Amino acid sequence: MPPRAFLSATPLFYHRRVVRTQVAVIGSGGDNEERAEKVGRLLAERGATVVTGGRDEVMAAAARGAKSAGGTTIGILPGETREGANEWIDHVVVTGVGHARNLAVVASGDAVIAVGGAWGTLSEIAFARVLGRPVVVLDPGWAVDGEGVERVSSPEEAVELALRLARTAVDEKSH
Amino acid sequence: MPPRAFLSATPLFYHRRVVRTQVAVIGSGGDNEERAEKVGRLLAERGATVVTGGRDEVMAAAARGAKSAGGTTIGILPGETREGANEWIDHVVVTGVGHARNLAVVASGDAVIAVGGAWGTLSEIAFARVLGRPVVVLDPGWAVDGEGVERVSSPEEAVELALRLARTAVDEKSH
Amino acid sequence: MPPRAFLSATPLFYHRRVVRTQVAVIGSGGDNEERAEKVGRLLAERGATVVTGGRDEVMAAAARGAKSAGGTTIGILPGETREGANEWIDHVVVTGVGHARNLAVVASGDAVIAVGGAWGTLSEIAFARVLGRPVVVLDPGWAVDGEGVERVSSPEEAVELALRLARTAVDEKSH
Amino acid sequence: MPPRAFLSATPLFYHRRVVRTQVAVIGSGGDNEERAEKVGRLLAERGATVVTGGRDEVMAAAARGAKSAGGTTIGILPGETREGANEWIDHVVVTGVGHARNLAVVASGDAVIAVGGAWGTLSEIAFARVLGRPVVVLDPGWAVDGEGVERVSSPEEAVELALRLARTAVDEKSH
Repeated sequence: MPPRAFLSATPLFYHRRVVRTQVAVIGSGGDNEERAEKVGRLLAERGATVVTGGRDEVMAAAARGAKSAGGTTIGILPGETREGANEWIDHVVVTGVGHARNLAVVASGDAVIAVGGAWGTLSEIAFARVLGRPVVVLDPGWAVDGEGVERVSSPEEAVELALRLARTAVDEKSH
Repeated sequence: MPPRAFLSATPLFYHRRVVRTQVAVIGSGGDNEERAEKVGRLLAERGATVVTGGRDEVMAAAARGAKSAGGTTIGILPGETREGANEWIDHVVVTGVGHARNLAVVASGDAVIAVGGAWGTLSEIAFARVLGRPVVVLDPGWAVDGEGVERVSSPEEAVELALRLARTAVDEKSH
Repeated sequence: MPPRAFLSATPLFYHRRVVRTQVAVIGSGGDNEERAEKVGRLLAERGATVVTGGRDEVMAAAARGAKSAGGTTIGILPGETREGANEWIDHVVVTGVGHARNLAVVASGDAVIAVGGAWGTLSEIAFARVLGRPVVVLDPGWAVDGEGVERVSSPEEAVELALRLARTAVDEKSH
Repeated sequence: MPPRAFLSATPLFYHRRVVRTQVAVIGSGGDNEERAEKVGRLLAERGATVVTGGRDEVMAAAARGAKSAGGTTIGILPGETREGANEWIDHVVVTGVGHARNLAVVASGDAVIAVGGAWGTLSEIAFARVLGRPVVVLDPGWAVDGEGVERVSSPEEAVELALRLARTAVDEKSH
């Protein structure tokens, strides 16, 4: 272990810029698990952290995919305990704010990929745009048209585009 | 129902039980940074992930301490961007819910350690107890008395006690 | 003033069933103010309380319409103060939770009427459906199709339908 | 831009300044209901709207007291439906954000009166101070000392002081 005093007095060599790109993967529906898992795996292979709502179906599949490639996963839960978290979450955020956690899920992504999904997913796509996060919808999915929402037809394209948009978004905000 | 394993390239041995213990470190005040940094370092040395509100003073110091020991940090921010996040955060959760993120900070800890702090910290101590999370106050700090709030006088004791209480809390909920 | 002891010991004659129907009016865009004002006025004429996000454009117009007919208005604000509240709000709820207040706006309606609007409105339509609140979109508006979302073309139809759906929703939940 | 008056049948003299003073009454515990009811009644007699968390015990008693004097009550609920709302609430705000609704309760008061209470109440006292709302604790109650928290020993004093502080707070912010 390096001497801590050195590091703590000298934050020069460790700073926020090393935070990895975080991509939120949203959606639901058992039929979409295979696509979501592939998205998660490809994101991990590209070095991005996968952020999800932490629960089942698409959320679990994306995290499972990320872990299968040795990636890192964050799950942002709606309830007041870890109950219902899927098994592939590395870092569990328990929000206690119910569906308002949807805001946190997309806000925590530098970009957002939607895989299937129902009303909750639509709320996330909308919130992502309220906050200026780029959204990539993997078709078939919510047919949302509007500035900042792109639609693609394969997991590969989704990941490629999301990472490119994430980079741009981050550069613009220089955060 | 098809066997889940079939759907995925799932690493069979990866599951939630390996989520590391997460301890929330709360507080504020520049005078408390040294103590907070020590708390963060000791937690990391013991293998716990440090969860904070992600900003300055105590939050930054605890994360800095954790990173100095090679640990992992999660920062849960109140705003809608990463702005204001300190440099020692590995995983940034942007909640967009303002001070309501205080609920998420303590809910995400298996135990909570308070180092100094003002009104925001008191809201977190109170929320931690609403949710049944054990709280360790490092004196001098908020003189809160009540079931589930313990007070200690050194970072070493704080970490020791928090980890013991976290284990108990987790066992009780078997999460 | 009636003797309070009588009332407080005897809640028989004052209870929740007298809470008036609450309808959330959501949307944005200066072009939609005229329609929103009419919706607000018609709701008030029918005895419903108008719930909005409390700010400008559609939110202000709906409240203004309600007040022009002697109705009651509730404004649910995103910030931490009353700043930005429009002048036609009777009861101001300051949430402090940013865009997560969108969840509260629609949750507080027995039904929801959307008049124009952008991404924030879409998040509200989606949240309304997550929570099972009936939604009436006044065309032209968000072209959202899905169970529980009806589209109409006049303020009169919107109000008529929303009140009918609200009654059904309330009966079902018997709240 | 067309004159706003043209767009509407707006009553010209109706504007925000007529929003009544809103006082949040927080607390819990069946033993405190009598005091809470008196606080609610006195607030209503003085023309203030009573804001509470909308549920039982102190929250119900304060609302009951207000209604016994012909006052107006707002209940801000944690859940996703009106379930659990007490019978004396005129205007029901369903937030869906769990305990984070505590932030909304105190944020919606120009001043806050605490009557008894446990951890949830402490979170509200703390949040009130984070947001700069004046707090009056009716003893016996939480023994919180700090700037902006006053302690009194009768409902009459609590209401008198809260209304005076509310006026000052509003004047300062000129909202």
